[in-house]
Amino acid sequence: MIYGKIFSLLKNYFLLEWNLYTNHKFVKELSIGRLSENKFLDYLVQDYLFLIQFSKAWSLALVKSDNLKEMKVCAETVNGLINFEMDLHISLCKKYGISKETLDSAKEKNKNIAYTRYVLESGFTGDFLDIITALIPCVIGYAEIGKNLKKCKPSNLMYLKWIQTYSGNEYQNLAKEVGKFYDNCIISRLGNNFQNTYKWKAIKDKFKTATLLEVDFWEMSYE
Amino acid sequence: MIYGKIFSLLKNYFLLEWNLYTNHKFVKELSIGRLSENKFLDYLVQDYLFLIQFSKAWSLALVKSDNLKEMKVCAETVNGLINFEMDLHISLCKKYGISKETLDSAKEKNKNIAYTRYVLESGFTGDFLDIITALIPCVIGYAEIGKNLKKCKPSNLMYLKWIQTYSGNEYQNLAKEVGKFYDNCIISRLGNNFQNTYKWKAIKDKFKTATLLEVDFWEMSYE
Amino acid sequence: MIYGKIFSLLKNYFLLEWNLYTNHKFVKELSIGRLSENKFLDYLVQDYLFLIQFSKAWSLALVKSDNLKEMKVCAETVNGLINFEMDLHISLCKKYGISKETLDSAKEKNKNIAYTRYVLESGFTGDFLDIITALIPCVIGYAEIGKNLKKCKPSNLMYLKWIQTYSGNEYQNLAKEVGKFYDNCIISRLGNNFQNTYKWKAIKDKFKTATLLEVDFWEMSYE
Amino acid sequence: MIYGKIFSLLKNYFLLEWNLYTNHKFVKELSIGRLSENKFLDYLVQDYLFLIQFSKAWSLALVKSDNLKEMKVCAETVNGLINFEMDLHISLCKKYGISKETLDSAKEKNKNIAYTRYVLESGFTGDFLDIITALIPCVIGYAEIGKNLKKCKPSNLMYLKWIQTYSGNEYQNLAKEVGKFYDNCIISRLGNNFQNTYKWKAIKDKFKTATLLEVDFWEMSYE
Repeated sequence: MIYGKIFSLLKNYFLLEWNLYTNHKFVKELSIGRLSENKFLDYLVQDYLFLIQFSKAWSLALVKSDNLKEMKVCAETVNGLINFEMDLHISLCKKYGISKETLDSAKEKNKNIAYTRYVLESGFTGDFLDIITALIPCVIGYAEIGKNLKKCKPSNLMYLKWIQTYSGNEYQNLAKEVGKFYDNCIISRLGNNFQNTYKWKAIKDKFKTATLLEVDFWEMSYE
Repeated sequence: MIYGKIFSLLKNYFLLEWNLYTNHKFVKELSIGRLSENKFLDYLVQDYLFLIQFSKAWSLALVKSDNLKEMKVCAETVNGLINFEMDLHISLCKKYGISKETLDSAKEKNKNIAYTRYVLESGFTGDFLDIITALIPCVIGYAEIGKNLKKCKPSNLMYLKWIQTYSGNEYQNLAKEVGKFYDNCIISRLGNNFQNTYKWKAIKDKFKTATLLEVDFWEMSYE
Repeated sequence: MIYGKIFSLLKNYFLLEWNLYTNHKFVKELSIGRLSENKFLDYLVQDYLFLIQFSKAWSLALVKSDNLKEMKVCAETVNGLINFEMDLHISLCKKYGISKETLDSAKEKNKNIAYTRYVLESGFTGDFLDIITALIPCVIGYAEIGKNLKKCKPSNLMYLKWIQTYSGNEYQNLAKEVGKFYDNCIISRLGNNFQNTYKWKAIKDKFKTATLLEVDFWEMSYE
Repeated sequence: MIYGKIFSLLKNYFLLEWNLYTNHKFVKELSIGRLSENKFLDYLVQDYLFLIQFSKAWSLALVKSDNLKEMKVCAETVNGLINFEMDLHISLCKKYGISKETLDSAKEKNKNIAYTRYVLESGFTGDFLDIITALIPCVIGYAEIGKNLKKCKPSNLMYLKWIQTYSGNEYQNLAKEVGKFYDNCIISRLGNNFQNTYKWKAIKDKFKTATLLEVDFWEMSYE
């Protein structure tokens, strides 16, 4: 339960879907260096467009927060994403031959739109727990994938670096913090008997759907 | 508890605020025919602008609904408001010398904005219960005022007609239906022990604030 | 330009995408009675879930309206959808052996989620034109498909009835009205030189993306 | 036009309302040290609650942004507000005898709610220009008030400090930046002939209403 008690619970409810996501062909091929570079570069471009919507989603979570403490967590996340992650992503892409212009003129693919708009719409139509729940499979999923692949040493340096990023302490700690934050957000609102609440059903559905949309995010590169 | 169990509970929690609203000077003066006509006509103009935002609020509630049954209630309310109530209001205003042009060019006063935008923002930032709760003091408050004034016979026919509208069976039944609907919405989500949930605190705050903003809505005519 | 001037313009900009949608294999197979019934029944179930989100989208459009006239159009559409179309759809499904329980327990597929949440998010993040534009490919696309298939007489009565519904006068008139409404909404906001405005670029993107998400909606039945 | 060309235009359209706001009795009394301390302390408490909603408004503006550059401006503003301004405000309040507990248990007054919810609702119902326009009278108004009072030296140190904060270079530069940003946001969307667009009418209304709600924010302390 290193990524929190409630994530752990949700993952086990939907282990089938979770495995489709975290053990996807894309991940496996990447870990052994068999993934075609075109697919990876395409993924990087889509991931750039994803990060824009992902930052908006954390901003919307801030709007939906119930107190200053939650707002601080969201504000730091947004700031980290927009003023650091995005620049990192842009310079990484540049290093791999994808210019800023290419990134900015790229079109979001349907499966990218599907996940990000689902997250945003969860936040607009729903409440704080809905949007955070829809974000969890992304934030913690990447940490778990990173952890699973930690010992893989693909010869392709782009893939090695990707694994190092998500298996590294910095990202692992962030995911652990988010997992703890998620536990607190749920328990402070729904109590320790959260599993007996009406809201819990909606949370489970949201987690499952978001996980399946993440499966499609990997699929996207194979189209 | 003719307007529902939960409304009744909330009213009793905030009886002071509720009485400030339902026994406001505007209401008293209207009931004995002492209200200046200018104030009443000003109220009718603001109420027209209010109805527009009120219709939007019920539409937003539909977006926030959890099931088809809730959606149906909201859709009927929106349709009733926009395709019937608005026309009634417009023809009533015309009869009292306020043209459609006057209505459409009128400016919303701050205290009108305060209540309507609070309701809409409750819906956007919050969930279905938040927006319905913010609407309840309006829907049921007018029914209670109507009921309280049922036997008053002000000589001013505009005032008499106003009392007849809100004390009449049609409006009374609508308010009873909404009260029952509200009970179901709360209990289906929060259970019978709703008073022990985290959400209940937010609902109480919302009800109290909305009631105080209704007090200001009456105040508006005295500025 | 029977479905309006601006729809016509947008369709011609994105004729490739528009044809992928309106001449999709699903449509062709349906028109000659070659579509497997399982696919059609699956489509009906997903369409039920679609209608729920579609009704929410029109409700959100009401919230985003600029005047009472626009609100009336949206309110009538919502009311028509929720209090008539839904019941028709439910009884049609029942006739074809799909119970109300099956409908209510069905899961939205990813490609269904993709389109509906894109529409809703367009409305929440954007303005009235954004959400109406995202709805246009659905409303008018089905009319054009219906018109194209008008003379087809598949032996399968379910398919014949589907064609009759969308090629019939009632639906054709509705689509023409919506097309005219859309023209007015755009021109009243952006003027006759709308094609030179900043907003027009966003509208074109929105129309294209929504059309491509509709292509995926047909694809859905082949998964 | 030190705070931008468009702000300057809007201010001059609504000079009467603008003067009611920037030359309000509260401001005048503060500048000569005649303001009762109770009123000022009450203002500080309400301003704390205001800052929470104000941070949410800038976060919502981020969600409504059209490009990464706008998102960066919003993200920095939100981060500055939540991770610096709020702490400053809390420690200032503490110094003046208002504990964090007092702040957190304080109730928002109606006139505080009126302005903040109007801003948020403008963002939810409207677009990026709507929410930024609703924020402008606050951000730039305080800068202009600070500039106007720069030479005032009230003996009350709390008041002197308040004047120094808003007349100081840091805040003045921020307001100038926001003014320039606002110019860019409008012109990039509406073009140089923005005054001939449909949107411009809505922007003017929004600016006027927000200014009048700011007048009420000062009034609040006199109730």
